[in-house]
Parts: sequence; C-alpha cells; structure tokens
Amino acid sequence: MKLVFLGTASCFPTPSRGVSCAAIKWDDGDVWIFDCGEGSQIQIQKSPLKPGRVTKIFITHLHGDHLFGLPGFLCTLGNGGNVENKHIHVYGPLGVKAYVNTCLELSSSPLPFKCTFHEMVPKDDQFSNDVYQAKIKSLLNDRAENSGDEEGDEIIHFDATSKSWRLVFGEKEDACVSAAAIKHRIPSFGFLVTEKDKPGRLDVGKLQKMGLKPGPSYAELKKGKEVTLPDGSVVRPKDVLGAPKKGRKVVVLGDTCDTREIEELCEDADLVVHEATMENALEDKAIEYGHSTPRMAAAFAVKTKAKKLCLTHVSPRYKPISTDEAKLDEEGDKSAKILLDEAQQFINESASHCEVTVAEDFFELPL
Amino acid sequence: MKLVFLGTASCFPTPSRGVSCAAIKWDDGDVWIFDCGEGSQIQIQKSPLKPGRVTKIFITHLHGDHLFGLPGFLCTLGNGGNVENKHIHVYGPLGVKAYVNTCLELSSSPLPFKCTFHEMVPKDDQFSNDVYQAKIKSLLNDRAENSGDEEGDEIIHFDATSKSWRLVFGEKEDACVSAAAIKHRIPSFGFLVTEKDKPGRLDVGKLQKMGLKPGPSYAELKKGKEVTLPDGSVVRPKDVLGAPKKGRKVVVLGDTCDTREIEELCEDADLVVHEATMENALEDKAIEYGHSTPRMAAAFAVKTKAKKLCLTHVSPRYKPISTDEAKLDEEGDKSAKILLDEAQQFINESASHCEVTVAEDFFELPL
Repeated sequence: MKLVFLGTASCFPTPSRGVSCAAIKWDDGDVWIFDCGEGSQIQIQKSPLKPGRVTKIFITHLHGDHLFGLPGFLCTLGNGGNVENKHIHVYGPLGVKAYVNTCLELSSSPLPFKCTFHEMVPKDDQFSNDVYQAKIKSLLNDRAENSGDEEGDEIIHFDATSKSWRLVFGEKEDACVSAAAIKHRIPSFGFLVTEKDKPGRLDVGKLQKMGLKPGPSYAELKKGKEVTLPDGSVVRPKDVLGAPKKGRKVVVLGDTCDTREIEELCEDADLVVHEATMENALEDKAIEYGHSTPRMAAAFAVKTKAKKLCLTHVSPRYKPISTDEAKLDEEGDKSAKILLDEAQQFINESASHCEVTVAEDFFELPL
Repeated sequence: MKLVFLGTASCFPTPSRGVSCAAIKWDDGDVWIFDCGEGSQIQIQKSPLKPGRVTKIFITHLHGDHLFGLPGFLCTLGNGGNVENKHIHVYGPLGVKAYVNTCLELSSSPLPFKCTFHEMVPKDDQFSNDVYQAKIKSLLNDRAENSGDEEGDEIIHFDATSKSWRLVFGEKEDACVSAAAIKHRIPSFGFLVTEKDKPGRLDVGKLQKMGLKPGPSYAELKKGKEVTLPDGSVVRPKDVLGAPKKGRKVVVLGDTCDTREIEELCEDADLVVHEATMENALEDKAIEYGHSTPRMAAAFAVKTKAKKLCLTHVSPRYKPISTDEAKLDEEGDKSAKILLDEAQQFINESASHCEVTVAEDFFELPL
C-alpha cells in the first residue's frame, strides 16, 4: 500500500505541478483517488498507476482545482477495456453528482459503466455563504423530487455518534472510510481511511506441541475463537497468537484553515496529508483564503500524534524542491523547501518525532 | 498573425498530446482560442502565448475533449492581473453558458471579470439524437424564462442569407467571424475568420507629380474617395492605388465526417484546420464516430482551393511525428506521418498545390 501524489499545486496547475489529486495504491493494485483536479487523467498516465484500476474517487470539496478533472477522468475510463464490468464509486459533497451529470449530459457523453454517487450533506455550520448554502440545499430538494436517481446513489448525513460521515465499511484490507468536517471557504472534508487490526501470527510450534495440527481450527483461533482439543483441554487464542498487527490509518484532508473539530478522530494516524499553501509569514492571508501554513499543519500532526505528515497544495509561488537553486535565484523565486523547513522547525520545537515531507507530483509514500 | 496548436489529440489527452485547443495570435499580441479541452490552461503556459492576452474563446462543439478545460481556463484567468478591465467573449453552441455556469456555481467560483456568452442555436438537422436535441432545446426555454441573463449575452440563430451564424463583425484587422454547420454526432461548427481586403499602396511619386502633397487627401484616396485638385481636375483612387492586399481567411473546423454543406463558404482560405482522426483504411470507423480521414480532409481542402491544410485531432494510436522511429517499432505503434502521407498523396493526385502539415502540440503556422 502506498500513497502517490498526482497533483500538488494549489489554485491552478502549472507545468511543474498539477492541481490536487492523490492516490492510494492497494497491495492488489486497485487505486483510490482523492480529489481530481483538471489534468489528473494525464498525471495518472505519467505515473506508475493504472487508470483502469481506479475503483473509488473521493472529492474533499467542490472547488475547481479539486474537481474539474473528474468528468474527463470518468469519460476516459469509459474508453478503456472491460468497461461492462467496471463500477466506479464517487464520494463527495452534495453537488458532485449534479456537477458530473451536467457535464456529461451537455457534452452528450453518457458513461458506459456504472457510476454510483455517495453525496455528503454538509452541516449548516460548514457554510459561510448564504447564497451558496441555498444553492447546495436546493439540490437536496431536486434529489428528493427526482425519481430518476440511479440505483445505489445515496445521500449521507452527518452521524452525530461517530462525528463523521460514514462512507465505506470494511473493503480491501477491512478498510473503512469516513469523512470529517474541516473549515474552509466552502464545505470541505477530510477522509479517514482506517484498516481493522489484524490478528497476530499463530505460534505454530506451541500449537503442535499441544497436539494441534494445521487445519480449520487454526483459522478459528485466528478469528479469536477457542478450540477444544480431543482431551477436553481448551486452547485460548490469546495463548497462541502474537501481538495483533495494527491496521493502518491514513488521513487525507481537503483545503482548510481550521482542523480543531477533527483532532480526536484523526489521532494516531500513520500518515496525515495536510495542505500548506503558504509560508508562516503569510498566515493571515492563508487563513483569509481558508488555507494553512506549515506551522498549522505541523501543529495538527503533533497534536494528533501522527507518525508522518506530508504537506501538499503548494502555492505556485514555491517551486518544487527539485528545482535547480541557481535557477531559483535568477528568477527571484522561492522553493517549497521553506515549507518543509518551517514544519520541521515546529516539530522539533514540540519534541515530536513526526516525519515530515513536502509532496511533489509523482512523489510516493509507502505505508 | 499566426496559428499555434495547444492540443492536437482526439478523444483523450496523453502525455504527448493535449486535447483540442488552437490559438490565433494577432499581431498586437491578443489571442483567440479555438476549443478548450482539459489541460488547455497548462498547454498555454507551456507555449509562447500569454494567457492574459486571451480575449475570445470559440467552442466548436460540446464534446468534453473540446470543452472540459473551459471552466478552469476562465478561473485561472481570474487569478491574473488587471482583471477588473478584462472582458472575455465565449462563442459556442447553445449549452456552453449553462455548462460553464453550473461548473462555476457548484464550485463557488464566480469570475472576477466580465464574461459574455454568444450561443449559437443549432439547426434541427444538426441533431442525430432526439433526447439530446430535447435537452439542448430546453435550454432555450430556460433562457427565455431567465430574467437573470447577463447583459450582453446573446442567442444567435442561423442566418439563411449568409448560410452561417454571424458572430464577430470587424474587429482586429477588420476581421469577421462566422460559424458554419458541419456534420458530427452532435451539433458541430466550423469557424471562418476573414479579414477585409486592405487598399493597395498609394503611388506617392505619381501624386506629387500631380501636385498633391501628403495630407488628409491621401487618406481620402485610401478610403476610396475621389479628390479634386485646385485646378479642378479629379484624382481617382484606382489611378493612384496599387493592387489591394487580400485579407486573410482562416477556417478552423470542429469534429466532422461531412463538410459538404460549407464548401462554398470556405472557398479560397489561406488555411484550413481540419480533423483527421484516423488513417484512410479506417474510414468506415471514422465516419461511424463522426470523424474524418486524411483523404476526406484533403478532398475538402482541394475542393475549396485552400492554400494550406493542417490536420489535427489525431487519434492517440498515432504518435507524434517527432517520436523516435526505433521506439515506434519497438512498441508496434504508428506515427502520425501516415496521416500526412495519405493527405499529401490525395493532394498530389488532384494536381493541387495545397501545402499540408499535421499539427503537433505547440506547432506554429505563420499566416
């Protein structure tokens, strides 16, 4: 399992950075996409990922730099092979279905495969603009009146118990996905991908000494069930199983200037992907536009005890770290290294051991 | 004045070819865009053109590979400087305004500059699908009912006299733009950009011998007006003006499998940009999908006596001509040179002198 960044720019794409798109590549080769800015279908072609293996697409919020690549991405998937068996699930804020369907209808491009929309209804406190709120809420009424909804499409409301929108239940490595509300200029979400813990290894030597040979009872023990031997003695799972293997937890956040509401949900993640659009000195401006600085991203990672933090959504003012330094000086540009250094400084000052990186397009993080 | 190709692929973009976008760069630096497939805003950044100099955008038809880059292109123009004075005109089939506005509304991205939509109502015989026709026609009703139309937005109907949709009247070098109907799976248009002829050079030597010194009367003669000398004799423009300079005529066609209806309108063009999606051997398949082969494109150019023909909208199966030949053999791929050769062969057999090229991304044609 690894995370592959396909677009790491904020606002608009440049020749050196695509707009927002990241992918989880599962061990079986399937790919889940997080955000789909314009050009994501070209970026995935340039990456080692196979577009035909994409099965789920998660959209953090409806700003164009996270969304405008989606209709083209879906259309191009329809040009690939084996489309009759393809089934894509799209998860995103209410409005994503109307957006995709309008694009496909007006361009007369019906998809040749099944595409199911799972739309999250934002909480009222996520809106900062009444007109936009009314627009999005009117879609709810349209949906209620529209009898032509595709089978499987669903509207998902906030679940007060889990403090999240519950989206995926036990797929892949028993992974669940939920979404949590973060503050931005429009309703924005973070996605939490959590695997279940896996049972530890069976102590085969010990079992054979007990007289239990490999067979169905081994599987029972792995499932946590007791097994009774012919002599009547009982083997308890805790006596023959090693320490459970902790399931991975990956948090991919949309654009945000305030993540306080989701700190508890995001605790102990193996990886947090957090935007850091502008350097610390521009924090006022960053917050004004609903964005974060490296300090804010690092503070979240430290507070939630994340093992790794990856910064992304980098303003075009910061060139990729790989840019030749002489060229930077020449043009008076800054490198994204400033973002990395500022986050690292906060982490050091907090005596945290969180590993921080800044993403570039096609950067890969094994998990 | 030159034509710059920004995307030359059919159907979907690849790392070596963007989807449809071409630009006329006028002598004053202004840029008119023809089609705006996904990623066009990145392609223009990679080209010598300045995105901030774009003033008009023409959309040939609403298929995604010609359209899906438009909302992002407009949003990014809004991030540039001097936006308060910017005014972009978008010309395209009815539906382009609803498409752009839906994208901008749902992504909460109002444009910070004036954008005027000039939408062409297709003729009924341009539709091959009743459902799509009903969808597009319903937009006409929506427009009629919608009192919130931006000032300047207009609906343009077919003009039976000129057999075209008349879009631009005497801008730049006195250029006019009209659109003509070509056959495709959905309503598709070709754009004709025609400059007025310019008066020839004044024979200053002759005028001075007649006793007429440089002054306002020179301008009168250039405008075609007679001038009376103090001795009562009359100077006629035709006696002192050289041959008029022919205005340029550029034809940029959308996707098509049949251009017979517009042959007369397109006669004597300096340049015809015509799609040639597939090689001659695949003509049946090309026509089935509403597309052309090099033979069909060349036949149109020969019939209309075009001086130059440029093929574009190349299927991803044909690699750019610049691709290393050894690499082509290795992967069993074909080069777009096959398209060029087939068009050239038809032109040779027709004893025409039309110059033919096949476009690659960033290819420039001076006019």
